[in-house]
Amino acid sequence: MWIDPFLISRKMRESIDMLNIVQVVGYKNSGKTTLMKQLIQYFSETKVKVGTLKHHGHGGDVNLPKGTDSASQFEAGSLISGVQGESITQLTFHNLEIDELIKMYTMLPIDLLLVEGYKRADYPKIVLVKNREDLSLLDELSNIIAVGTLDSALMIDIGYPTFDLNNLDQNITKLASYITDK
Amino acid sequence: MWIDPFLISRKMRESIDMLNIVQVVGYKNSGKTTLMKQLIQYFSETKVKVGTLKHHGHGGDVNLPKGTDSASQFEAGSLISGVQGESITQLTFHNLEIDELIKMYTMLPIDLLLVEGYKRADYPKIVLVKNREDLSLLDELSNIIAVGTLDSALMIDIGYPTFDLNNLDQNITKLASYITDK
Repeated sequence: MWIDPFLISRKMRESIDMLNIVQVVGYKNSGKTTLMKQLIQYFSETKVKVGTLKHHGHGGDVNLPKGTDSASQFEAGSLISGVQGESITQLTFHNLEIDELIKMYTMLPIDLLLVEGYKRADYPKIVLVKNREDLSLLDELSNIIAVGTLDSALMIDIGYPTFDLNNLDQNITKLASYITDK
Repeated sequence: MWIDPFLISRKMRESIDMLNIVQVVGYKNSGKTTLMKQLIQYFSETKVKVGTLKHHGHGGDVNLPKGTDSASQFEAGSLISGVQGESITQLTFHNLEIDELIKMYTMLPIDLLLVEGYKRADYPKIVLVKNREDLSLLDELSNIIAVGTLDSALMIDIGYPTFDLNNLDQNITKLASYITDK
């Protein structure tokens, strides 16, 4: 039997390339969390296996419940503490760069990773704008595929496909196509 | 420049092989959680980068705090929900086979993975026994490197290096050497 020497490396590369990654970014109260939830539901219903990653942007920290085994192992010096329960596994670790973090997601059986936040990362982005001032984001950020807004007055002359977040139920299929076809 | 076609595959393989994995197993109340903590502290102090994984064996589930973004995304259908805070990241997902889970750990900068539980997995094991009945574990389990017990009467004729968990402070260096040198 002839074994392709590139097989393992190609398999590895393909698994990273084949994970479709899209970001939802915008300032506070621009509608990110709601849009994320709508997209998760839409894709789950269409049998796309979705994973999510959220940057907790309010200066807070993730809550590691005191007294749990995970907290106790983490405090003792474990750099990554994992607990597997009856149906759910939870891993807790010190922050990594987003690219390193995404390598962990490539080990899981998902097709699409929706990322909330991390404006400065370079993955394809849906940018949410809530007023005219927010439009400066469109000049600052890379790799924009669509723009969403709660203010329909902003839906002219933006230069990107634009979606009214108030009527997203009617347009989510179209927005989803920008994610799957890009 | 000549590029070794096996380079990426070898790098991948090495990163998996080079993660030292050791399990701590035993029945309930045999001292697993305490030994895990002692080992984490010992290795952290000796600059070994430790990660941990615990199988929550009491029929309970991992607690996913209601009302958090992570819980909300998970309930909406996300198969893996991650939240990055100021210093800590937490990933929540449906259980995987232990070998798949360990692939995620290989993406992180750790040298040693201490696994609590998963008796039937095949990684090198420290088996904890609390009474004579527990000794049957030594016939049932694979890949045993050492035995620990809180009952010094069990420390004869076991056929494996055996450690008194009551006096572990004095012997932890020796136990650790079974982990690092195996």
